[in-house]
Amino acid sequence: MRILAATVTPIAFPDPPLLNSAGVHEPWALRTIVELTAGDGLAGIGETYGDAPHLGLVRTAAQALAGADPFDLAAIRRTVAAVVTGHDTTDRHGLTGTPDPVAKVFAPFEVACLDLQARSVGRPVHALLGGRCRDSVAFSAYLFYKWAAHPAAPPDGFGAALDPAGIVAQARMLVDRFGFRSIKLKGGVFEPDAEIEAIRTLRAAFPDHPLRLDPNCAWSVETSRKVAAATDGLLEYLEDPTPGIDGMAAVAREAGMPLATNMCVVRFADLRPAFSRAAVGVVLADHHYWGGLRASVDLARMCDTWGVAVSMHSNSHLGISLAAMVQLGAALPNLTHAADTHTPWQDGVDVVTAPLPIVDGAVTVPDGPGLGVELDRDMLARLHENYLRCGVRVRDDTAYMRTVDPAFRKLRPRW
Amino acid sequence: MRILAATVTPIAFPDPPLLNSAGVHEPWALRTIVELTAGDGLAGIGETYGDAPHLGLVRTAAQALAGADPFDLAAIRRTVAAVVTGHDTTDRHGLTGTPDPVAKVFAPFEVACLDLQARSVGRPVHALLGGRCRDSVAFSAYLFYKWAAHPAAPPDGFGAALDPAGIVAQARMLVDRFGFRSIKLKGGVFEPDAEIEAIRTLRAAFPDHPLRLDPNCAWSVETSRKVAAATDGLLEYLEDPTPGIDGMAAVAREAGMPLATNMCVVRFADLRPAFSRAAVGVVLADHHYWGGLRASVDLARMCDTWGVAVSMHSNSHLGISLAAMVQLGAALPNLTHAADTHTPWQDGVDVVTAPLPIVDGAVTVPDGPGLGVELDRDMLARLHENYLRCGVRVRDDTAYMRTVDPAFRKLRPRW
Repeated sequence: MRILAATVTPIAFPDPPLLNSAGVHEPWALRTIVELTAGDGLAGIGETYGDAPHLGLVRTAAQALAGADPFDLAAIRRTVAAVVTGHDTTDRHGLTGTPDPVAKVFAPFEVACLDLQARSVGRPVHALLGGRCRDSVAFSAYLFYKWAAHPAAPPDGFGAALDPAGIVAQARMLVDRFGFRSIKLKGGVFEPDAEIEAIRTLRAAFPDHPLRLDPNCAWSVETSRKVAAATDGLLEYLEDPTPGIDGMAAVAREAGMPLATNMCVVRFADLRPAFSRAAVGVVLADHHYWGGLRASVDLARMCDTWGVAVSMHSNSHLGISLAAMVQLGAALPNLTHAADTHTPWQDGVDVVTAPLPIVDGAVTVPDGPGLGVELDRDMLARLHENYLRCGVRVRDDTAYMRTVDPAFRKLRPRW
Repeated sequence: MRILAATVTPIAFPDPPLLNSAGVHEPWALRTIVELTAGDGLAGIGETYGDAPHLGLVRTAAQALAGADPFDLAAIRRTVAAVVTGHDTTDRHGLTGTPDPVAKVFAPFEVACLDLQARSVGRPVHALLGGRCRDSVAFSAYLFYKWAAHPAAPPDGFGAALDPAGIVAQARMLVDRFGFRSIKLKGGVFEPDAEIEAIRTLRAAFPDHPLRLDPNCAWSVETSRKVAAATDGLLEYLEDPTPGIDGMAAVAREAGMPLATNMCVVRFADLRPAFSRAAVGVVLADHHYWGGLRASVDLARMCDTWGVAVSMHSNSHLGISLAAMVQLGAALPNLTHAADTHTPWQDGVDVVTAPLPIVDGAVTVPDGPGLGVELDRDMLARLHENYLRCGVRVRDDTAYMRTVDPAFRKLRPRW
């Protein structure tokens, strides 16, 4: 079996005005869909970021992969590395650490190759990741402060959430619809005291749901320590309160709850300094920048070996990435926390024919071959049309916020 | 595809009187051969230790695995764990650390399952371990002090080696026959000064071959430091000079060369203390007790992440284990040292029809499906007959040495 063609399609889909420390989500979120076709009618799919520089590298890599053996992931990674080397690789996607640029371009091809491999052997992808450790993968309700609508647009169906009552209403909506059993609040938007109050209100409304707060490094070490003290006993973990491994270590020394990160530990080289300084108690794996599903399995095993817990990070994504996360989660013995997902915010729009449903806060691990989802070619064409028309080429929450609030600046820390 | 039957066959093969710090190799070395048969004429093979307690657990596990899916390694490991739990698991096989008892029983089944998986997809096992990183895997000449013959037996074909001249002659024989480009001396047999002299003599005779010395923890920290100073500039690495992670760390702080280990870092839980104390610069992977090939890939990646090099350990073994080591070595990007192997000492006796040949000190990575070797059923039957007749049930180099030298004791450290 050889890769006959690698097709790369940028897409765009509507995104609500979700607020975060960098600004606000634009009306269109971008992704790139990778499809590898092989002989015998077999194909494999992957999903990654849609920003133009990344898209360019993915396209160049795709051309270089025609004729490659989808089972020889080491050779495919070498091909990707040759494409990436020498190109701009400073894009951090908002992280404070620097992901491995090769890993980020390799990831969608690795997922697509594993999909291909698994289809060729008639087994789910998790069988190629070490086998099934659980029958369903739990996800958390991912709360955002948000406006009722994008500027000059009609209100979306989710409503505004700009205070504790709005956040609790949003949580109720998500828990009612999807059965989530954990709740995460994206913070870093309002004064820390307002977000502490939101957590307290959530705790009162959902006494049994583990809660998390993620201000995306909006706080100084001192502020982080104050918030940690004020939310002691309320949080399952506090995620990326402050920038950098040293800053996180300084907070961790005094915080009562574990600190989690997907921002300062973003490549294998970050593990040694982070773990040796006890900077984090939970690593949020993200196969999109750790280098695919196998690398994420490796990451989880390293975390287990060093006594660090594992959860999963999410950017805006569609059903291929959700399926990849579910296959990965199925194979991780130590996935002890519910994973993040933006799925509810995509409001049913997807690029797969039958998205894996979130029921009772979890996705049942599919038994079928491959990732367990099929590309919806009509939707792919429509979402690609969106991409061509929408005008967004690089995600920039800050620039978009400045169209509303010209004085807005991205500050880490802000408080 | 399901496992229809798991066949477990203990075997014995002649072994020369190789000396080490624990005593001397008995006339018979034991191994256990595992064969998994599945539908469609597919089968997979694995090789492990032959000691009676281990054999008992492997047999019980084999019975429990009928009907299992050879692709679901996580489920197979759970089945093995259920078998192992509660049984005697204190056997250390001469190590100073304690290997994971489940990993040791799981390993031959994991190798056999990967062989089965790879055959079913028509690809070499390394394709299931991440893909090919090299075309051949280098091995080292593994020198032993030895007697000319077992007591009351005719001389074997290898000759005696009891002083520097004998060691150099042995090295010459192995290098001439197999083209080895690295040389390892099993020490811990004579006074340290005699072994230092052997290294110096080897260096003079083989000026370009990387050299290693492995006394199997026969030395105190103080003696280890003295030997390290005396061999500074002569050794690629010094292997397991002294017992325990703390002892190794104390030696490593003053040694000019990296310390290697397969004795004090033998399970994932050992990595954190060993690496945080900078006790070792090289870990010798051994899939037989680390839990198979996937676990060994994980181990190598952890070593790479923590800045530690990787080599491979060997006990007396036959061609299935050699093939497994070659498949593993093919998939490890950071296998920067030649692997150990006892293969020459088995003098052509094997349990596979066409053992992978060592040429120019390396084994070419096979391209065929699976491990790349086939079980020789006639030899399996003959070697099993050996097992039934030989009387050895548990390897005991010390007891065997005491039949010659009743005053001999196993001491760590001895000097």
